[in-house]
Amino acid sequence: MAAITYELIKTCKQSGARLGKIHTPHGSIDTPIFMPVGTLATVKTLSPDELDEMAAQVILSNTYHLWLRPGEDIVQEAGGLHSFMNWDKPILTDSGGYQVFSLSDLRNIKEEGVHFRNHISGEKLFLSPEKAMTIQNALGPDMMMAFDECPPYPAEEEYMKASVERTSRWAERCLEAHQRPSDQALFGIVQGGEYEYLRKQSANDLISLDFPGYAIGGLSVGEPKDVMNHVLDFTTPLLPKDKPRYLMGVGSADSLIDGAIRGVDMFDCVLPTRIARNGACMTSNGRLVVRNAAYARDFKPIDENCNCYTCRNYSRAYIRHLVKSNETFGFRLTSYHNLYFLLNLMKQVREAILEDRLLDFREAFFEQYGFNSPNAKNF
Amino acid sequence: MAAITYELIKTCKQSGARLGKIHTPHGSIDTPIFMPVGTLATVKTLSPDELDEMAAQVILSNTYHLWLRPGEDIVQEAGGLHSFMNWDKPILTDSGGYQVFSLSDLRNIKEEGVHFRNHISGEKLFLSPEKAMTIQNALGPDMMMAFDECPPYPAEEEYMKASVERTSRWAERCLEAHQRPSDQALFGIVQGGEYEYLRKQSANDLISLDFPGYAIGGLSVGEPKDVMNHVLDFTTPLLPKDKPRYLMGVGSADSLIDGAIRGVDMFDCVLPTRIARNGACMTSNGRLVVRNAAYARDFKPIDENCNCYTCRNYSRAYIRHLVKSNETFGFRLTSYHNLYFLLNLMKQVREAILEDRLLDFREAFFEQYGFNSPNAKNF
Repeated sequence: MAAITYELIKTCKQSGARLGKIHTPHGSIDTPIFMPVGTLATVKTLSPDELDEMAAQVILSNTYHLWLRPGEDIVQEAGGLHSFMNWDKPILTDSGGYQVFSLSDLRNIKEEGVHFRNHISGEKLFLSPEKAMTIQNALGPDMMMAFDECPPYPAEEEYMKASVERTSRWAERCLEAHQRPSDQALFGIVQGGEYEYLRKQSANDLISLDFPGYAIGGLSVGEPKDVMNHVLDFTTPLLPKDKPRYLMGVGSADSLIDGAIRGVDMFDCVLPTRIARNGACMTSNGRLVVRNAAYARDFKPIDENCNCYTCRNYSRAYIRHLVKSNETFGFRLTSYHNLYFLLNLMKQVREAILEDRLLDFREAFFEQYGFNSPNAKNF
Repeated sequence: MAAITYELIKTCKQSGARLGKIHTPHGSIDTPIFMPVGTLATVKTLSPDELDEMAAQVILSNTYHLWLRPGEDIVQEAGGLHSFMNWDKPILTDSGGYQVFSLSDLRNIKEEGVHFRNHISGEKLFLSPEKAMTIQNALGPDMMMAFDECPPYPAEEEYMKASVERTSRWAERCLEAHQRPSDQALFGIVQGGEYEYLRKQSANDLISLDFPGYAIGGLSVGEPKDVMNHVLDFTTPLLPKDKPRYLMGVGSADSLIDGAIRGVDMFDCVLPTRIARNGACMTSNGRLVVRNAAYARDFKPIDENCNCYTCRNYSRAYIRHLVKSNETFGFRLTSYHNLYFLLNLMKQVREAILEDRLLDFREAFFEQYGFNSPNAKNF
């Protein structure tokens, strides 16, 4: 019995987007879904109760960061991540592959694994498919990721081909090392950059190993939006219809909609919470940088069309004051709003799929947000 | 009609402590009470809903800080502090006098007021009794403080006498300048340091002006605990029985109990939230510094005798991990716990007064907390 199952509810006649449910040991998830990121077993500034209140259904946490702090053994002793952080709904962890490549300057990739240095202490570390599984089995999320090689963007064809093949060999080792397949679903990660034949090779390799879910990696790493959409156009059709598809590292409103249209079910990104800590908010009318002087005496909510806790109770002027004064509560309010905004967007996307009108929704949303204007901001 | 009234419910037969209620335009407050401090119109890290949940009945905010950021005019335009920060229960503001003396190195005290420099920008500023009233009338708290001179500890008798006399003259100017006596109660501040005859002179001066409440200033400024208790012993009996008495800047558990025993009704201090941001917690068994390595694998709550949100849901190990990782949510959890601890302590003090057993309560509490041991920690 697999740890998770994917139930396809319907396909949008207008767009081809999928409406579905992922059933996990900690409850079901309506897809397409955005997953807030809780890097260190906490979604920065927020409580699990607040995530629940804003209808977050699943959160992501980072293997690499938890391995270093507090250490997966402590999380395991606490009874696993759910118990440690007081979140009883589904959790997904990444494999650490991305952090090894993005946070460490000194890395040495070998077939066995990657030697690199701790981004905090400089200490020498080694991560491999087997180690990534050991850590994730100790952390105990509902969904976990295979340890992949994350190539830079852009990457030469030859490098990419070798990388894809290594990622496939590592995926097989991950499956073999995984100790809890009955309550933790391991996802394979399709790589291949912009190269259609490599994406195909990667997908075929992984599908032959029969993972309970598939992630699409190597996107949202600096490439233009149309490149990402083009890669999705030829990649998602390669994936089995009865398994969830997860596009890693994507959290701008336009890309969430465009990803759903291309058949993606799951997304995650630190974007909404990271920009919140700079006082930047996503609103139905586009980006609003609340720390700007223009809002000093603006007593309207961040987004007049929003019904979140922040927008129901606090003004732009108050939030600006807090953010300018570096007060934590200001960052709580902007973080809450931005996550609510994306969760609510995905709810609207699911409704639009149900009613076969996701392209219409996209058009109206893009127009109001400002994505259709020249030089549109990317969030 | 005065903005507030004090209702004496009963006096503890064992200790002489007062059980009472302060009726304000934003509801009633059970006394003795501890007031969480929200310096910049936010109790650091926490939401008003959380303060409400932990049964905070009144909070304090700082005139000096709000004057500089965001400016009292913006708070006034928002409809006052209650509306600006979304807190509809009572608020008290100080006068800025203490900050002028504690934050500014360059100050020039004249009869007219105090010239000093902004602690953030270095800009030249001037605060006077009239200005302190104008700002507090704009902020709109239920209770506000007269602008006093805060002498250092220790201070020479001659300096202290001149200072007390100036504070009395300033108190009179405050009363004259105060524009909203019907919905904002102005407290006079009794000064005089350790000098009994000066405390008497100060109290008599202020009582002759008939303030709706009296604060005791110039304590908790570095003097030993027995000096503070001794000063309270001869100061509170000087104050009218039908008005509330507020001991400024006191927030350690022992001093709250000892202050209540000496007839004090209100207390405030940044201590519980400030130490929380260093990972230090108040517990029924004394101070617990959760960032210590000893708690890395300790899955018990901060205080096994505590029923707060933090203690019901999170372990020392998890909170230590968050605090060590500088994660905001860790500081939320320790701040929540410490404020709950003091609010709950004052609830127990009120119950003990009602049952004429506050000295017994003090003895048991001091013993368990560790205040009776040699070199006891001061919180």
